[in-house]
Amino acid sequence: MPRDGQVLLRTRYLSLDPYMRGRMSDVPSYAPPVEVGGVMVGGTIGEVVESRADGLAPGDLVLAYSGWQRYGVARPAAVRKLDPDAGLPVTTALGVLGMPGFTAYAGLTQIGRPRPGETVVVAAASGPVGATVGQLARILGARAVGIAGGPEKSAYLRSIGFDAAVDHRSASFEADLAAATPDGIDVYFENVGGHVWDAVFPRLNPFARIPLCGLVAHYNETAPAAGPDRVQALMTAILKKSLTVRGFIQNEFAASLEPEFLQRATPWVRDGELQYRECFAEGLENAPEAFVGMLEGHNFGKLLVRVS
Amino acid sequence: MPRDGQVLLRTRYLSLDPYMRGRMSDVPSYAPPVEVGGVMVGGTIGEVVESRADGLAPGDLVLAYSGWQRYGVARPAAVRKLDPDAGLPVTTALGVLGMPGFTAYAGLTQIGRPRPGETVVVAAASGPVGATVGQLARILGARAVGIAGGPEKSAYLRSIGFDAAVDHRSASFEADLAAATPDGIDVYFENVGGHVWDAVFPRLNPFARIPLCGLVAHYNETAPAAGPDRVQALMTAILKKSLTVRGFIQNEFAASLEPEFLQRATPWVRDGELQYRECFAEGLENAPEAFVGMLEGHNFGKLLVRVS
Repeated sequence: MPRDGQVLLRTRYLSLDPYMRGRMSDVPSYAPPVEVGGVMVGGTIGEVVESRADGLAPGDLVLAYSGWQRYGVARPAAVRKLDPDAGLPVTTALGVLGMPGFTAYAGLTQIGRPRPGETVVVAAASGPVGATVGQLARILGARAVGIAGGPEKSAYLRSIGFDAAVDHRSASFEADLAAATPDGIDVYFENVGGHVWDAVFPRLNPFARIPLCGLVAHYNETAPAAGPDRVQALMTAILKKSLTVRGFIQNEFAASLEPEFLQRATPWVRDGELQYRECFAEGLENAPEAFVGMLEGHNFGKLLVRVS
Repeated sequence: MPRDGQVLLRTRYLSLDPYMRGRMSDVPSYAPPVEVGGVMVGGTIGEVVESRADGLAPGDLVLAYSGWQRYGVARPAAVRKLDPDAGLPVTTALGVLGMPGFTAYAGLTQIGRPRPGETVVVAAASGPVGATVGQLARILGARAVGIAGGPEKSAYLRSIGFDAAVDHRSASFEADLAAATPDGIDVYFENVGGHVWDAVFPRLNPFARIPLCGLVAHYNETAPAAGPDRVQALMTAILKKSLTVRGFIQNEFAASLEPEFLQRATPWVRDGELQYRECFAEGLENAPEAFVGMLEGHNFGKLLVRVS
């Protein structure tokens, strides 16, 4: 039951995102873990089923943060009312026009800063962050190279305008990446780590920028990797090539940049200049399996759970 | 013999700087190596002994780049005339007001960007870069913590205004660094690497900036370090703490920033707000031994060779 000033929301869609893995662990990070027995956090689209707050009425759809549950309560200030008649599916507010899209926009415009003609490489490129990074790079006049798992995802990347796509599961991955980046790499948008990073690293150009917003290849690791220790090789390359490696979480930039992002990106999405792909798990009971599958790369596009 | 438009310079002072180690190796870097049998590069102060160029006359002192030799020829556009009556030793043009001082200024103001009250840590802090970094940090309102080898150097750092100094050769180095940085580290000006980096790394605050202009602890390494591989631990920290690691060579900023630096820093040096210390090797024949000693930390202050 909502109290005065609150609404009761029925969760329609739950967003599944890699950052959630960190909240399922008590390793220190930028946000505290969810307690065992607590409600796992997550972005949602909810329908107002009861309102004791001004400005929201039953039937309204809102972007909320109800997490992995069927019902939640919220104050109007903590949600954003969505317009189902705006010509875009409301689910875009969890994907290309939501946190993942904004992560791409903030990292690319504030840290990557590609200049026309430069080469931008992004991994997990068929996901909602990566696909947006590549298309934004093209809009900014740069060359976009996507890395994804499997030929189907690579074909998709080419179909939405990437200049080249490379399959990191291929035996010829390193050679393919070299062929796709004949002028080296000026911006590497890092959200994966692991063997993708190893292939990208030697191809970084002097003054390359590396916005780092995820390391999904390592989220399940519990022990240090075998030697040799390559920290000094990394630091030496940063020195000799004047590289910039910058970690970030999108909310650092939200207050200053999100209005600009929505204003610019909404027409791009509506006009088809910025395309996106969604995939759905059916029912909250299937969320855990879908989440684990996403960390292993089984999803294809922005992963959502249809809750009700 | 100088040709038309050139001057003949007798080298008075040769600057010894850690970057020279890279030019003595054929490992790829930001500048090509010096050929075997060629003249080793280096900043110099030269006296004009013969002039076939306008604007320079015998007896004039100039900042030049003659390298490790007793005589060199240069065009006036490649040198800067020094004023021996300006109230400062001309050798400052190779140190606190030269390339090392400018390295400190560029890295701290363009990358480190300390805010008042933040903690700036610098290693090799009694050297010409590190001593300038710490004093500039104080001028900018930050707290300056210097790391150096031995109690004599630590005492010197306190005497020139560092808030704290830590001896990296002490058995209690890590605990001493923790005590000297009770609020963590917001800017670490990295020019050393090795065990100093290992002690600094866990104390970096969220959003810390790491201008990286040298790794002198590693310049003589030829083999990778023993495992485990700590690259992912480093990348994970960069992600979770939103760190910035930025390699740089001072000449990236020279055209845009050096006039401002000289205009601001010259009065600071003259007024004693920005202090410096020099040490001299006598005679070009002693330059190699002095250089090797510098890489091992035996010098104390800006190292120069008195050539003639």
